[in-house]
Order: sequence, then structure tokens, then C-alpha cells
Amino acid sequence: MGILAFLSDFGLKDPYVGVVKGVILGINPQVQIVDLTHLIPPQDVFCGALHLWGAYRAFPVGTIFLAVVDPGVGSSRRALVVETKSYRFVAPDNGILTGIIKDDRESKCFEIKRTSYFRHPVSNTFHARDIFGPVAAHLSSGMSSRVLGPECKDVELLEWFNPVVLADSVRGKIIYEDSFGNLVTDIPWDLLKGLGPNHGKWVPGESLVVEAGGRSIPLANTYSDVPPGEPLALKGSFGLLELAVNRGSASILTGLRRSNRVLVRRKGPFE
Amino acid sequence: MGILAFLSDFGLKDPYVGVVKGVILGINPQVQIVDLTHLIPPQDVFCGALHLWGAYRAFPVGTIFLAVVDPGVGSSRRALVVETKSYRFVAPDNGILTGIIKDDRESKCFEIKRTSYFRHPVSNTFHARDIFGPVAAHLSSGMSSRVLGPECKDVELLEWFNPVVLADSVRGKIIYEDSFGNLVTDIPWDLLKGLGPNHGKWVPGESLVVEAGGRSIPLANTYSDVPPGEPLALKGSFGLLELAVNRGSASILTGLRRSNRVLVRRKGPFE
Amino acid sequence: MGILAFLSDFGLKDPYVGVVKGVILGINPQVQIVDLTHLIPPQDVFCGALHLWGAYRAFPVGTIFLAVVDPGVGSSRRALVVETKSYRFVAPDNGILTGIIKDDRESKCFEIKRTSYFRHPVSNTFHARDIFGPVAAHLSSGMSSRVLGPECKDVELLEWFNPVVLADSVRGKIIYEDSFGNLVTDIPWDLLKGLGPNHGKWVPGESLVVEAGGRSIPLANTYSDVPPGEPLALKGSFGLLELAVNRGSASILTGLRRSNRVLVRRKGPFE
Repeated sequence: MGILAFLSDFGLKDPYVGVVKGVILGINPQVQIVDLTHLIPPQDVFCGALHLWGAYRAFPVGTIFLAVVDPGVGSSRRALVVETKSYRFVAPDNGILTGIIKDDRESKCFEIKRTSYFRHPVSNTFHARDIFGPVAAHLSSGMSSRVLGPECKDVELLEWFNPVVLADSVRGKIIYEDSFGNLVTDIPWDLLKGLGPNHGKWVPGESLVVEAGGRSIPLANTYSDVPPGEPLALKGSFGLLELAVNRGSASILTGLRRSNRVLVRRKGPFE
Repeated sequence: MGILAFLSDFGLKDPYVGVVKGVILGINPQVQIVDLTHLIPPQDVFCGALHLWGAYRAFPVGTIFLAVVDPGVGSSRRALVVETKSYRFVAPDNGILTGIIKDDRESKCFEIKRTSYFRHPVSNTFHARDIFGPVAAHLSSGMSSRVLGPECKDVELLEWFNPVVLADSVRGKIIYEDSFGNLVTDIPWDLLKGLGPNHGKWVPGESLVVEAGGRSIPLANTYSDVPPGEPLALKGSFGLLELAVNRGSASILTGLRRSNRVLVRRKGPFE
Repeated sequence: MGILAFLSDFGLKDPYVGVVKGVILGINPQVQIVDLTHLIPPQDVFCGALHLWGAYRAFPVGTIFLAVVDPGVGSSRRALVVETKSYRFVAPDNGILTGIIKDDRESKCFEIKRTSYFRHPVSNTFHARDIFGPVAAHLSSGMSSRVLGPECKDVELLEWFNPVVLADSVRGKIIYEDSFGNLVTDIPWDLLKGLGPNHGKWVPGESLVVEAGGRSIPLANTYSDVPPGEPLALKGSFGLLELAVNRGSASILTGLRRSNRVLVRRKGPFE
């Protein structure tokens, strides 16, 4: 048994995902493999980090995560296992575990050195098959992380969420567009509680408003709080502020894209 | 054990499908989760209903179906469990179960009210994770539907297949284009048996013909009954009349789209 | 238990893959089904054969492979089980098993004739559901291939890799473009060992060079051997020579496509 959740940028048209699963099942035939997504844009480490972070807390304690977006494959970048209180993560050392490490400052990190758990010969192009997959499979069978190599520090971290909190406003940006056209920002919903009068639960007419792309967008609790086709801002599935459209696409309506700016501010007394 | 079949419009690039699976496996680690499809066009409830209906009979008795296309998430639309003789279905009350309920007039419907089986806090945007997924997981562990809430009536139904049957013809329309370019109509194959001389088994030269987009298209038993590149009409995988092209795409050849009309008629004596 | 790896051209937006899995699980509820890919371009038997060949060796001994790209469904093409030393393959007789049979000249082939293992009624359009899937499920439960029908010869084979080996060069062609934009050739890496001085392990300045699309492309061990944005040729995941770009797409950079020619040759003394 055991659960192994797998995220990559391998796409679904090539056999690469299937190959990694074959290798894993050869080592632990009992493991349940769950796909997080394999449609991370090729080599987009930030997007991989965001999705891994957005998903991992939904999984049962003990889940092993295999996260491979690896533009540096075959170079000298390290291979890592990161252990948090509840989970273990196998990944290249390129920042893909940023959200995990920011969430658990007590996490431990091990550099994968012990080659006896690899698939041989080890290629220069497909470490998910030859290194990360086999190691994750062994961990899912109950192996200790410590046997893989020494504890290590200075794990690579990406620039993570960076909203600027001022007295009456929060400035952030769009970091992701999902397949419904929802625009995810880097503003944690809980940050807004300090600004609003009602602890992050909004009713029409309240005192916060979102500005993006030249529009004022109302905060709301759910899509149907505004008429169909109208934009709103709400707490999304990532726990971050999202721009959405009731029964529509915020991406299409607003034309906004990744890295465009978003401002949340108190309404003035005469607005 | 137990099988849980999952259909949604969540797409495959976001982590939403993986998140729901994580939650399910936290409740029932033994369940086998099978993806029906997650590429229902966003918020297209009819398409979700069609695919669920087209697939469910292939599954073993006892399968739990989780079907989430949910444009009304966060509004007051109800959450349902529908029980047929062989299966149980967990879904929003928006018509996605239309085909199931039309197939089994003895099915029972329960409104999901008992919040103790939900994931808390329940969001306004992601009920697959917080309500439908957890409930389906509990059902897959053998829980009775009755504990979830009261039996209910007046379940929302979509306009379903509506072919018009006349003395010498059947009029219907295209309701779906599959990834091969086959055009699925709303005309059940068995309807044609009354029209034809040979109980729905067609040989070249027989007396029925299909008209669509200004073309006459022959009925046939299989693709290779016509030359490569030529159109035909046949019984498709849904049990419905389909337009196809031998080693090609009916969609590309004919230019026909969803909601375009299709007529099946007897040939005249001098045709 | 048992593992069943499934490859098709069914796409992911239709319910066909889910339907086949439902049928399989009705026969063997314990089997672990792994998707190789379902995004083979519709009816592209060569591409299906390539991906099956590229993936199968990663799987544990005893795995059953179900490979359905089947433009001749409903015609008189045969249905096959091929047994190699380590695996069994269920597929239509149209060349999709070419790579498997070329790899193991001792493989045995059986024609599937025994209809009692089919799903009835057998359609003319969906043999993955009615014939191949059920047979693969029974094999995964431990059934002998011999009960399905007689041993057979003259299995259909596709034109397979055809590089031309000359004294100082190898001529081949591009056979596949993966989702990273890597261009896979039909030149097995091991063929180059005879040409190069260093047994297929390349260092900058060595004596082989690849020519394609009017460019000279250096051979290298891994992506990071050249600067970002620069092309290279290396041993890819299929064990074949590939053209790639460090942190980029060889397809976009070179404009090369399937069937374009690739030449590997010794450098002249003054190059």
C-alpha cells in the first residue's frame, strides 16, 4: 500500500509518465499512484511549485510526492528528499519545493547520493525514470530517507508570494490562470482579514474593492453573488484571492495575464 | 476495495482532480479511482450528463460515480445521491444525472444534508473537494445513502434526446463530436429498427438513408463498409446513430456541428 | 493483482478510456491499470507502435499490455495476443506490435478466436471494450494465452527504423516530436559507437557531428553541455539519437518535422 502522488511537466502525449509508473510498480507493486498533473508548462518550475503547494495538504499523512520539473537534468543540480511532519517529497533541487519548505520551517532535507536505489544505467536526460521515481518507490515501501544521503542545507528557493501590505491596501499580482479562466493572485485570503471589517467574510456593499486592469471588481463569497457574466473576486481553491466571472472566464473578460498587478483597497467614504 | 468512477470539467492542467483524489484516499485508502474524463467543456452540464450516461453501464455493479460539472457551486442548488438498482451517483442537482434517471425510473434520490461527512471548512468554490468527493468516498466504504439526508423528488432534468419519429422517417440532431471527429446524434439506434426491413442490421443497397448538411449518407455496419475517406452512418459506441468517415473525420468532411439536424428516411422506389 | 498497461488513440475528452477500464475491472477487480498514453494521433499506428516500444521495458515482468490503435475495427483484421519472454500484448494485427516482435524473435503469437471471453453483443466499432479489453483482463487474472486461439504466423509488421550505415556516416530521419519539442530520430544510439572514438560517450571537440535542416549540431552527453538556447544531439529516453535544445525546443528552433533527414558523420581533419 501507500500513496505516491506524481507531478511533472512530461505532458500526456508521450509515454514518459507511463514509463516512470512502470519503474515504480516494479519496485513497489502495491503502491497507489495518483496523478497531480503532468501538464505543467515545459520547464516552468514556478508553476510546478505552485501546483504542488496547492494540492499536497489534501492528501493523507504519509503520502510520498514525486515532483519532477527538471530543466537542469544531467547537470550538477542536486536530487533531494524533503521530509515534513506529515509527508515526504522527492524532487530536483531547483525551487520546486519552495511552498512546502515555507509551510514547514522544521522540515528536513536530504541529498540523494546512494546510487544503489537508482535504475541503472542512469541516463543524462530522464532522472524521473532513473533516480527520482525509483527513490520515491522505495520510500513508499517504508524506507527511511536517511539511507539516501546526508542531511543538507541551502536548498534552492524561488521568489514566492510577495504581496505588499500597506495601511489601507494590499498590492499583489496574478500568478496563475486555471482552465476555467480564473485568475489566481499571490495574495493570501487571510491577509485581507486585517483590512476588512468582517474577518474575511464579505457581503455586498462592504468596504473593500479589488482593482485590476482598469476595473473595479467587487469582493464576494461565491460566483452566484454577482449576475452571470459579471466579474468578482473571492477566496479560491488555493486559499488565495482569485478573480473570476460567474458562469464565465475572468481571463477572457479582463484580458489579464500572469504578472499583471492586482490591488485590494478600502473604499473611500463617498464611493 | 470498491470502485469510484470520477467525471468532471476540471481539466488536466490544474491540480484540482488530484486534490479530490487525495481527499477520497484519506477517507477510503483502498478504493480504486477510475477517471471517466475531466475534459468536459467548462460548465457544460449536458456534455457531462451525456458522457456519464454513455459510460456507466460498462462498470461493475456497486460502482460509485462522482460527477461534478457545477456552475452553480456555492449557490443554493442541492447536492444529491441517486441510487439505481446497480449503482450510486453523487452529483449536484443540475441535470447531470438526467440519463441515469431516465434509464431507471425506480431510482431513489437523497439530498445530501448531513455535514459530518463533509471536509471542513466547506468552501464556496470547490464542493468536489469538500462535499461530493468525501461523500462518494464514504459511500465507497459501504455507507448507506440514507444517512446523508432525506429522500427527495423533483430532481432537475435536462432536455434529453428528442428525436421526432414519423411514419417513414426519424428527425434528430447532432449532440456531440468525439475526438475522432465522429458526430453522435440523439437518435437511438434501436429506433431505426421499426423503419428498416432487417432489424437494424444494414447491408449496402437497403432502404434507409441519412441526410445531413445537404448530403445523403449511407447506413452501414462498420467503417470499412465504405471506401477510405467516404462518410457513413452507423451504430456508435453510445448506442446512438453516428456519422463517421472510414479512416477520416466526419466533422472535418461535413463541417457539421452540435445541434445541426439529421434525418433518417426510407429511400423512394426509384432512388 | 497484476498490472495492465493501456495505450490507445482514444483521447482524453471522450469516455472511451473509462468505459474500457470499467469492463476490465468487472472481470478483474484487483488489477492495477496504468495509462501509457491515450493521445496517440487518431489512427496513427506507427506512433502507437513507437510509444509502446519505448515504454514496455520499464514495466515489471508479467505486465499485460493493451494497445489499441485500430483504424480497421469491424473489418476482417485479426485480433492478437503476442507473448514474449517477460510480457504479453493484446492488440489488433496491424503492425502496432512491430517493435516488440523485432526485439524478441522468439515471441509467440496467438489469434484471438474464442468468443466466450468477449463482451456481448460485440459491436463493430469498439473492440477495445468488447474484445481486447476483456481478453487483456482475463490474461491479467492469469489465464493462458493458448485458450484464446491457435498460434499464428505472418503477423503484420510496419516499416521500422531504417538508418543507412555507411563507412563514415549514418543517415536516418526524424520519427517523432515529443511535448518538449525534442526530435527523436530512427538512429539507435548504439549504432554510433562504431563511428566514434569513445564508445558512445561524447566530449566537446570529438569527431562526430550531426547535420539536419542545414545546421551542424554538436553531439553531447546532456542538455547543459551547451549554452541555453543552443541545439545539441544526444541519447534520448527511447535509446535513440535525439535533437534537443538546452532549456528550449528543437522543434521550434530548427523547424524540422517528422520524416526530415538527419545525418551523423565524422568531422573532417580541418573542421
